[in-house]
Amino acid sequence: MMTKNAVTVLGLGSMGSALASTLIERGYRTTVWNRTPAKADPLAAKGAIVATAAAEAVAASPLTVMSLLDRTAVTEVLNSITHVVAGAVIVNLTSGSPADARHNAEWAREHGAKYIGGALLGDPSYAGTASMKVSLSGDRGVFDAHRSTIEELGTATFYGEDAGLAAVEFMAQVAIGYEFLIGLLHTFQLVHTEGVDVEEFAARAAETMTGYAPLVSMFGAAIASGDYAPDLGDLNVQVALMDDLIDHREAASVDTTRMREVRTLMQRRIADGHGDEGFSSLFELLGSRQTSSENGR
Amino acid sequence: MMTKNAVTVLGLGSMGSALASTLIERGYRTTVWNRTPAKADPLAAKGAIVATAAAEAVAASPLTVMSLLDRTAVTEVLNSITHVVAGAVIVNLTSGSPADARHNAEWAREHGAKYIGGALLGDPSYAGTASMKVSLSGDRGVFDAHRSTIEELGTATFYGEDAGLAAVEFMAQVAIGYEFLIGLLHTFQLVHTEGVDVEEFAARAAETMTGYAPLVSMFGAAIASGDYAPDLGDLNVQVALMDDLIDHREAASVDTTRMREVRTLMQRRIADGHGDEGFSSLFELLGSRQTSSENGR
Repeated sequence: MMTKNAVTVLGLGSMGSALASTLIERGYRTTVWNRTPAKADPLAAKGAIVATAAAEAVAASPLTVMSLLDRTAVTEVLNSITHVVAGAVIVNLTSGSPADARHNAEWAREHGAKYIGGALLGDPSYAGTASMKVSLSGDRGVFDAHRSTIEELGTATFYGEDAGLAAVEFMAQVAIGYEFLIGLLHTFQLVHTEGVDVEEFAARAAETMTGYAPLVSMFGAAIASGDYAPDLGDLNVQVALMDDLIDHREAASVDTTRMREVRTLMQRRIADGHGDEGFSSLFELLGSRQTSSENGR
Repeated sequence: MMTKNAVTVLGLGSMGSALASTLIERGYRTTVWNRTPAKADPLAAKGAIVATAAAEAVAASPLTVMSLLDRTAVTEVLNSITHVVAGAVIVNLTSGSPADARHNAEWAREHGAKYIGGALLGDPSYAGTASMKVSLSGDRGVFDAHRSTIEELGTATFYGEDAGLAAVEFMAQVAIGYEFLIGLLHTFQLVHTEGVDVEEFAARAAETMTGYAPLVSMFGAAIASGDYAPDLGDLNVQVALMDDLIDHREAASVDTTRMREVRTLMQRRIADGHGDEGFSSLFELLGSRQTSSENGR
């Protein structure tokens, strides 16, 4: 007989194992399954119940947490549990796209199961601490019902009924990081070429970074209101600096892709009569807005 | 007769005027000059001595601070003061390239003057406060002799005897900001396309930003030591995420330039046998290092 305090974890990579360990330590009746059975041994030693098939594991608990390698593994596992999934609750914390999550949620609906899409931001060693950020979206009633269990894993945030929203949040937050960090490496290359100590420069750049958080919020407010105040100065003034930055990077054989893009966008905004606005106004030229603006010409 | 407490400010745009005002308020005998004389009127009302030519202004004080529009204006002014500049000290806070600063320092040497290259990071309204960052490099003895005056303007940092280093610092810090912020706008576009409230997302992104400062320092240390620990996870794991990020951005018609670059660099590091290292190791493939590595194949 199932107990309320029972949880199943599918996927015992470093993240899945860390999640399962946390649940065992917090006193949950934890059933685990992994394609390669040996990965379950350390957890069995801690008290986990080891299932020999994913379907058996899902049937053992009212709540199943998935932490698999990728979307292919998710699809395979879902296909293998079709006959037992009616009435089950699946919280999928495997990295994947918003479209994957929406597709999986639809699959669950068709099979009488409840689905919550999720994503984890944090090292496996953060499992069970506030530093592990758990993004979730999908069936709100199910989230509310299992919230206390999910919150054992980390800081849980629920983004809405669209099962893809947790993946959107994850993809967007991660993308900001990667785009920032690759730009940072290019600039490290620039100062290195100029004979500056990279480690010392990095310490100064880290200090400068602390000033950016308020600017990020300010940009969000400007975009929401459409009132693009001259944040870093107005575009008419900023654009002159772009030439200097591009010239300098070229002279040092350092990437200029982003600087050229910024200059072009600034020039377009100025040409459109928005030279008195701030950097945040470049948002108006990006993505689908760009297309609609181009079509309008 | 010149007093020790005399300073000249050339260029009275919003920044130059703010610097001159600060010096007047702090009790300096302040001589000012601007190409368009009317800009000097508000400062004259505060007690500034108004010179009718740049050379007259330079001759009036042992220390001259320049805050002009651009490098062209700097060159014009320097050419106009050639006959009075011997023995003078020029601190040029006009934005310009490291090469400009080195060129100007050489010019000063040839004419018997002392030169310090500089750059200002901060809004003119920050003049005279710790929030105005004043980067300086060039003649260290001159910096030491005039340090107390320069520190009236903001937080002064001296980067070394190479007059171009202050410009390097400025260019690099500003570039990190612009590269980060244009990437941010693309990701704002992504979440906007996905129906997420941009202002709310920005607030969450701002919170995430606070976690990046330690990572920036960690990257600097990794590059200095050549020991590229798996910072965000190892490259073998991170690279799979790049496919998801690129697919997602493409589906939303959002820029993928940087993500593709990151994926390519990760794939090269993995192919070179460094898949167990962290993101910071991509530094090894950038700029001149890239060229030498390619040549070595």
